Amino acid sequence: MFNLGNFLTLSTFGESHGTAYGGIITNFPAGLNINLEEVQHQLDRRKPGQSSIVTQRKESDTVKFLSGIFDGKTTGTPIGFMIENENQKSKDYDHISKSYRPSHADFTYDQKFGIRDYRGGGKSSARETVNWVVAGSIAKQILPANVEINAYVSSVGEIFCEKPYQDLDFSKTESNDVRCPDAETAEKMIARIKEIKKEGNTIGGTITCVIKNLPIGIGEPVFGKLQAELAKAMLNINACKGFEYGSGFCGAKMTGKDHNDLFNEDFSTKTNLSGGIQGGISNGMDIYFRVAFKPVATILRPQDSFNSDGDPIIVEGKGRHDPCVLPRAVPIVENFAAFVLADLFLINKLRKYSEPL
Amino acid sequence: MFNLGNFLTLSTFGESHGTAYGGIITNFPAGLNINLEEVQHQLDRRKPGQSSIVTQRKESDTVKFLSGIFDGKTTGTPIGFMIENENQKSKDYDHISKSYRPSHADFTYDQKFGIRDYRGGGKSSARETVNWVVAGSIAKQILPANVEINAYVSSVGEIFCEKPYQDLDFSKTESNDVRCPDAETAEKMIARIKEIKKEGNTIGGTITCVIKNLPIGIGEPVFGKLQAELAKAMLNINACKGFEYGSGFCGAKMTGKDHNDLFNEDFSTKTNLSGGIQGGISNGMDIYFRVAFKPVATILRPQDSFNSDGDPIIVEGKGRHDPCVLPRAVPIVENFAAFVLADLFLINKLRKYSEPL
Amino acid sequence: MFNLGNFLTLSTFGESHGTAYGGIITNFPAGLNINLEEVQHQLDRRKPGQSSIVTQRKESDTVKFLSGIFDGKTTGTPIGFMIENENQKSKDYDHISKSYRPSHADFTYDQKFGIRDYRGGGKSSARETVNWVVAGSIAKQILPANVEINAYVSSVGEIFCEKPYQDLDFSKTESNDVRCPDAETAEKMIARIKEIKKEGNTIGGTITCVIKNLPIGIGEPVFGKLQAELAKAMLNINACKGFEYGSGFCGAKMTGKDHNDLFNEDFSTKTNLSGGIQGGISNGMDIYFRVAFKPVATILRPQDSFNSDGDPIIVEGKGRHDPCVLPRAVPIVENFAAFVLADLFLINKLRKYSEPL
Amino acid sequence: MFNLGNFLTLSTFGESHGTAYGGIITNFPAGLNINLEEVQHQLDRRKPGQSSIVTQRKESDTVKFLSGIFDGKTTGTPIGFMIENENQKSKDYDHISKSYRPSHADFTYDQKFGIRDYRGGGKSSARETVNWVVAGSIAKQILPANVEINAYVSSVGEIFCEKPYQDLDFSKTESNDVRCPDAETAEKMIARIKEIKKEGNTIGGTITCVIKNLPIGIGEPVFGKLQAELAKAMLNINACKGFEYGSGFCGAKMTGKDHNDLFNEDFSTKTNLSGGIQGGISNGMDIYFRVAFKPVATILRPQDSFNSDGDPIIVEGKGRHDPCVLPRAVPIVENFAAFVLADLFLINKLRKYSEPL
Repeated sequence: MFNLGNFLTLSTFGESHGTAYGGIITNFPAGLNINLEEVQHQLDRRKPGQSSIVTQRKESDTVKFLSGIFDGKTTGTPIGFMIENENQKSKDYDHISKSYRPSHADFTYDQKFGIRDYRGGGKSSARETVNWVVAGSIAKQILPANVEINAYVSSVGEIFCEKPYQDLDFSKTESNDVRCPDAETAEKMIARIKEIKKEGNTIGGTITCVIKNLPIGIGEPVFGKLQAELAKAMLNINACKGFEYGSGFCGAKMTGKDHNDLFNEDFSTKTNLSGGIQGGISNGMDIYFRVAFKPVATILRPQDSFNSDGDPIIVEGKGRHDPCVLPRAVPIVENFAAFVLADLFLINKLRKYSEPL
Repeated sequence: MFNLGNFLTLSTFGESHGTAYGGIITNFPAGLNINLEEVQHQLDRRKPGQSSIVTQRKESDTVKFLSGIFDGKTTGTPIGFMIENENQKSKDYDHISKSYRPSHADFTYDQKFGIRDYRGGGKSSARETVNWVVAGSIAKQILPANVEINAYVSSVGEIFCEKPYQDLDFSKTESNDVRCPDAETAEKMIARIKEIKKEGNTIGGTITCVIKNLPIGIGEPVFGKLQAELAKAMLNINACKGFEYGSGFCGAKMTGKDHNDLFNEDFSTKTNLSGGIQGGISNGMDIYFRVAFKPVATILRPQDSFNSDGDPIIVEGKGRHDPCVLPRAVPIVENFAAFVLADLFLINKLRKYSEPL
Repeated sequence: MFNLGNFLTLSTFGESHGTAYGGIITNFPAGLNINLEEVQHQLDRRKPGQSSIVTQRKESDTVKFLSGIFDGKTTGTPIGFMIENENQKSKDYDHISKSYRPSHADFTYDQKFGIRDYRGGGKSSARETVNWVVAGSIAKQILPANVEINAYVSSVGEIFCEKPYQDLDFSKTESNDVRCPDAETAEKMIARIKEIKKEGNTIGGTITCVIKNLPIGIGEPVFGKLQAELAKAMLNINACKGFEYGSGFCGAKMTGKDHNDLFNEDFSTKTNLSGGIQGGISNGMDIYFRVAFKPVATILRPQDSFNSDGDPIIVEGKGRHDPCVLPRAVPIVENFAAFVLADLFLINKLRKYSEPL
Repeated sequence: MFNLGNFLTLSTFGESHGTAYGGIITNFPAGLNINLEEVQHQLDRRKPGQSSIVTQRKESDTVKFLSGIFDGKTTGTPIGFMIENENQKSKDYDHISKSYRPSHADFTYDQKFGIRDYRGGGKSSARETVNWVVAGSIAKQILPANVEINAYVSSVGEIFCEKPYQDLDFSKTESNDVRCPDAETAEKMIARIKEIKKEGNTIGGTITCVIKNLPIGIGEPVFGKLQAELAKAMLNINACKGFEYGSGFCGAKMTGKDHNDLFNEDFSTKTNLSGGIQGGISNGMDIYFRVAFKPVATILRPQDSFNSDGDPIIVEGKGRHDPCVLPRAVPIVENFAAFVLADLFLINKLRKYSEPL
């Protein structure tokens, strides 16, 4: 319960300033040569301190695998992994142990649990996503090699990447700090983030994710629809406020005549407003979805608030915070989506009866 | 697996033109006086044939409870229920047994399963939502009596209800056929749907749902965030293309300074861009979210397509179809949300340790 | 939660004197030609009134399939089924609505739930097992055709079938009322049950179940060991008091030297004290286990007891009760085991990675 | 899937000669002062090298908590823990990388997964139970303080503790190396184990577990019966061959008249052949069950076998192995049972509806 995945499952643990993060992946198929460099590479993409527009917290974010892999291959038994926290400084946080920061989870955690680890947000910190990146980047290796999952920053504040994804070259996504494959837009986004950072402010944005070559048939008909599993995963990412796929909210303005995707002879479709999914099941066309992220709640400016005793206080973020979460969220979205796909991909193998030999 | 809910769970069955729909609700608390009229009332709100702007299929949609309720009270044991299909006409569908209708699930079901019940879309029919309305309207009765869940049609095509939800009187939602509480907008929406219907076309729209008085603390920190569970539920509804809560996609354009919700002394917040949820947990403010629905794929106009043999065909919807799914989706959204809330509400009771007596 | 199965799952509903029993099987593979006669045949084997040594309650126990099967084949979508209760007589039970019968669940249900359906034991009635027989007899059809699951009554009271299972001819199990394949022992068992019945008393016994030709590799290493899943299923059967497999409790008296099963060259083993399972995983040898059933609690003799008000009462069973549950439990054990095996059989298909094509 | 528990869940990882064992406990209630010394104490009871009659493998078995506990209290978020392996010696095992040891899981793991970590049995090693002891000893702290869970060795080979559990003083269990509270029997058992050890042989036995003061109402009616959850847990313990509770297999020889437990006026029962459970639900009487363990498969004597190439080989255990697993299994049984009880205890709190305030 409250794990990720249905057959392939991920349990996780860890708090921002605890000893370590980590997780357990269950039911991973045996005999797969795991590319561990790729896992570390994905973690490095998410890591703080990569550029001037993200937080300068120092963490090497090195993943250690503790079980389930032998001689480089998965053994089919649970994969345990751990990422140690190196930069935990409990003292940094003592003064805010009673503070309720606006638009943070301090108040709700206290109300729900009657206790919380207040250091760096404790469990509510987005640092939890290191676990998801590890799990997703391993899970992706289950998928057919030609499946491509490419996310990119499609807007920062009011600056949008106007080009449709089809016109973008995803090999350029990593070529700039903001991870927008359109160089011109990227430049504007970076300038905007720097401006915002200078003001001690933060800014939101959207990420678009495109999945190519996913086999037909992935997703389950009733409560396991592909879009629902993706939406659930995305809305579990900290700061995520919305999810749409295919025509999304724009599709709600359209008529059936214009929205329907007519078939080609090979059962591909002439248009793809459906976003590659029909009845909850992949149809072989590109799957694409868009995720909204609110601006980071921690701003480096004084804000009026109250502490848990009800006394008025001033809270003011200090030091190492992201002015914009979007660039670092790109690998999170990609790898989290990969986990969902791998889970449903495995399950789909059981959905058609085949004569046992 | 692929049930709805985590502790309180719903399994369902049924196809559009099979014998019956039905479901089983597990772990329902014992001793609750169930208001069965309310359940039937919710079903009636979803029922076809209620007005001129929805499908004229005739179904009485009468729910029968088969277990788990004794002398009007829940017994704590599984609640089985059934809604018989009265209007199934297999012959209506024989001629399309091989047709692949555009933007329907015919092709994907065939590919995934190698077989499908082609009568009225079989399992992919939105008639499945009768089960969810039954389950949700029972589950809602677990929640505190003052919890209010009000959904309404907030847009049809390009026609938007411009008023914020705070300015609407939800007691007016049922006063018109389209279920928009703003009479003026409702009139325009209805006119638009009638126009679309005359053209044999269909149209999309959005539903906004507002939850008031939900206790603080509902939702789980990591993979069971309240917004994620709601998103998953909504994206499982047929034709749903997107979900946003609180500031949603608009919030992605904002800065932290403007987006943060400052506290009042009583820990309510001055603004509510967060949409009543912090860190995945309800904070006592209104929860509100918006759901996008694409236009119904079945249009009463000829469309080019192919059958499963790859032969070109013309498909053309006949007779009893919804020109706009939105009015009937209002009770689906409300009751489906209720199920999610009831599940997380129960779970939350276990999250704080209390000395056993 | 509290369904049967891990991937292939069964949810059930129904009370002894409610409207109907039924269930939903989820994740059944598509495209299998279901032998529905076989399902009814298994139900008939469990049915009351088959012989003079079982209860004379009249129930036709006819199963209706409501979904998930189309043109005789599974569609991959949930299979809903129902068995209507024909012989419910609420009035029979009014007088015992407050009685606590010795060694029944009346008291514990009242304490747990604060309410119970007292008619015929309500949910605690073993009539629930009709659901399991339906689900198991369908699930069995997923297994390779050569898998044989044979249960038989191996003891009634002090009368034991002394022959090892290897010396028995399972085709003889159905040739007598007690379902012991050894004719001579069967005769003694039947005589003993008739004697017991005449006294208004009841008697316990054991069932042995033998599974042949199960493929190697079924069962999961840690919490899904094959023996654990079988034990859990069996201990959920009403009146079951114990489970042992392979050498069982006798094996606890042995030394390693005598207990170890040495390999033959083909990796079969010379002995099979392990009972066909090593490390929770089937090894290709026969799987065999033994299940203990206590005597039925309802006896046709006066017993001192108390009602829920704490007043002393006399309870005395009337009419239609089983003097010995064993004969009817044989198909329950077999089919329940089949469900467990089918679930783990499907899961095992995903445990070895295979290059996607 | 394949975790332990229904609401309170445990995921685990680790192999005998990998880096570490560990686990994640989800849904633990917040605000409980955890007695960590007690957890380590339980681990120490299970630890190798405690006496001359158990394995001399050296492991300090020190548990580290990595999350979910803050200032000594649980925070309600996942509890991650780890036990590092100190004594892993891969070289010890190279020579047996292809050997199939009789009555071990070498063959079945290879067949199932196509690969295995052959060092010390890899995942199939009973060292996995360190995780269960940690999880169980924490979970026990959720239960009311007066709940007592006492297991003891009730037989070793043919030597039985003849006294009923009611006549034993459980405070004596730890006073001897074999963990049988009856000093005289303990002495015989120890002598027998030493004899067996000298022969390089091993021996089986049984453990009896008694649970006192469990509240009434624990256990779920259909697939979550208390005895079934206990049986599943026990049969997942390595070397376990059988489970019986209450009258168990002996009850199968009895008649209803003798087996029924008549009520006292306070709804306790005059006898307790039911073993404290009716209809799957605790009734307030002592719960007692018995678990059979086969002799350890590794013997320090030559045995004929085959390697994975089909070549005949001689296998012979070396060094540090348990001649009898029973003494160390006592804390495993107790703590594993505690986890099951805590899970069902929490769930039971939700089964009766109570008016929300």
